[in-house]
Amino acid sequence: MIDVQFADVARAAERIWPFVHRTPLERSASIDRELGVHVWFKCEQFQKTGSFKFRGACNAVLALPEAAVRGGVVTHSSGNHAQALARAAQLRGLRAYVVMPTDSVPAKKEATLAYGAHVVPCAPSLADRERVAAEVQKETGAYFVHPYDEPLVIAGQGTVGLELLDQLPDVDAVIAPVGGGGLLSGLCLAIHQRQPKVRLFAAEPAGADDAARSLRSGERQQVTTPVTIADGLRAQLSERTFAILRQHVEDVIVVEESEIVGAMRLLWERTKWVVEPSAAVALAALRQEGVRRVWGGRTVAVVLTGGNADLDALPWLVRRDPV
Amino acid sequence: MIDVQFADVARAAERIWPFVHRTPLERSASIDRELGVHVWFKCEQFQKTGSFKFRGACNAVLALPEAAVRGGVVTHSSGNHAQALARAAQLRGLRAYVVMPTDSVPAKKEATLAYGAHVVPCAPSLADRERVAAEVQKETGAYFVHPYDEPLVIAGQGTVGLELLDQLPDVDAVIAPVGGGGLLSGLCLAIHQRQPKVRLFAAEPAGADDAARSLRSGERQQVTTPVTIADGLRAQLSERTFAILRQHVEDVIVVEESEIVGAMRLLWERTKWVVEPSAAVALAALRQEGVRRVWGGRTVAVVLTGGNADLDALPWLVRRDPV
Repeated sequence: MIDVQFADVARAAERIWPFVHRTPLERSASIDRELGVHVWFKCEQFQKTGSFKFRGACNAVLALPEAAVRGGVVTHSSGNHAQALARAAQLRGLRAYVVMPTDSVPAKKEATLAYGAHVVPCAPSLADRERVAAEVQKETGAYFVHPYDEPLVIAGQGTVGLELLDQLPDVDAVIAPVGGGGLLSGLCLAIHQRQPKVRLFAAEPAGADDAARSLRSGERQQVTTPVTIADGLRAQLSERTFAILRQHVEDVIVVEESEIVGAMRLLWERTKWVVEPSAAVALAALRQEGVRRVWGGRTVAVVLTGGNADLDALPWLVRRDPV
Repeated sequence: MIDVQFADVARAAERIWPFVHRTPLERSASIDRELGVHVWFKCEQFQKTGSFKFRGACNAVLALPEAAVRGGVVTHSSGNHAQALARAAQLRGLRAYVVMPTDSVPAKKEATLAYGAHVVPCAPSLADRERVAAEVQKETGAYFVHPYDEPLVIAGQGTVGLELLDQLPDVDAVIAPVGGGGLLSGLCLAIHQRQPKVRLFAAEPAGADDAARSLRSGERQQVTTPVTIADGLRAQLSERTFAILRQHVEDVIVVEESEIVGAMRLLWERTKWVVEPSAAVALAALRQEGVRRVWGGRTVAVVLTGGNADLDALPWLVRRDPV
């Protein structure tokens, strides 16, 4: 079942390092004081294309054999994977097709176009995204690069964990947001192989809590209609990512929408980093009274996953309709 | 007339280094490409209290003799100098009184209070600010620390220039925003003493262009009603800062409001840094067709002065009434 290992992460690191940023690990004295925890932020908002997704996309695009990508690459994504794949394909001179729902944020569509991708519109439903992507695949012969249920993508995301351990060898715990589980799976493989005692936690919006329910019940659960402003976390675990998470993740901390917005705003105010809602979810988890009490005085790394916030619709200014 | 010298900047650096951040000098590949210039950003949004103002306030508070500050320190400010002085006073265990207009941004008032200052309200006019500050001074014996017309403050701000030359010895030109001229005066003293060939430019909003008109006419000009979203740049040059700028600054580049907002948004989108409107003014200047053509292929440092943006009133979302 688990067809991606630490060795794949190590290979990904060798493959992608000339093309990705080694992102900084930073702290905020005032957030430390407020939480009573030594918090370190792994700043993937400063990664190329503005999110960690570039690591996985880059690894997949560079690793795939010539024969597989002769027709280019294709994916469906409304967000960060779209830009990431577009830019990665550009590196190798491949055509990239990105199926994007018509309600995507205009800035994300523009960024994807700017990286030279062909954007193919679809209706805003998973079914239509998959249908249109399959059509593109059939017509062009492009290789489908899944945003998370793909060993090469998981291995690429795992390089976040390798860097983190290099930068912070004494870390006690790592908290990362979970959506489809690609990043977290990669972190599990990277971190537990090197330092099995580091405790790994997921953070998830209450309105898209399939990972929390899946890990607690031991069976993969679906959330049919995820409702959260953390648009990067609306995806569901796959069998592959679920299998990895079960072996490594201690708990999934569930956070409310107001906690996500609060953590996002706190980061903007105190650290002067633009982070998107999904990226604030792990800090939101650590700010919960019960969680921060457990980690008081210890060293916790929080993964900030991306900075592609919709600057025209900040959650504390605009009331969004539930999706 | 000019009672502040390079030696004062050097002393300030020795005095304040344990208390201030050495801020990073960063670049953005995509902004470089767009401008065709090698642009480096001096990131004072990451300075303590969120702006360069902490350097000057810190230098003043630490340098003043015990007898002068027995009654504490006082200033009037609606913005970054308020927070900076409050926090600097806290370092030395001094009382700080900050006279703030009643229309100040609530977040800035709260931050000033959080640093332990006494906030004294006044009407939103320079006359009333000065009147109330004088009253506080009389009642408490507190020492008045001017936001820019004060040698110790200018010397403190000059430490930005010393760091910049250490980080980028080959810089061809430096562009910084100008309001009262405290930062720019300090930069002039620091940079031209060490590297007289570096070309120094000011950037200023068209709605508060006293520096541009003063330097062009050779006589200090006033703008009685500055109108700009760059709230940190509404102040006027003093005789002291004017005298320094005349000797060192080659030109003042004037920018429109739309250029400020455009540069601010570009920074948020591309670099994921929260910068305030005033901080975007120097990049707005460099983006002007005529300016960037002059500096094509050369190395230019742009000072980003602070990150204390009003997150409830982003200029591309909210139409503000002219002040």
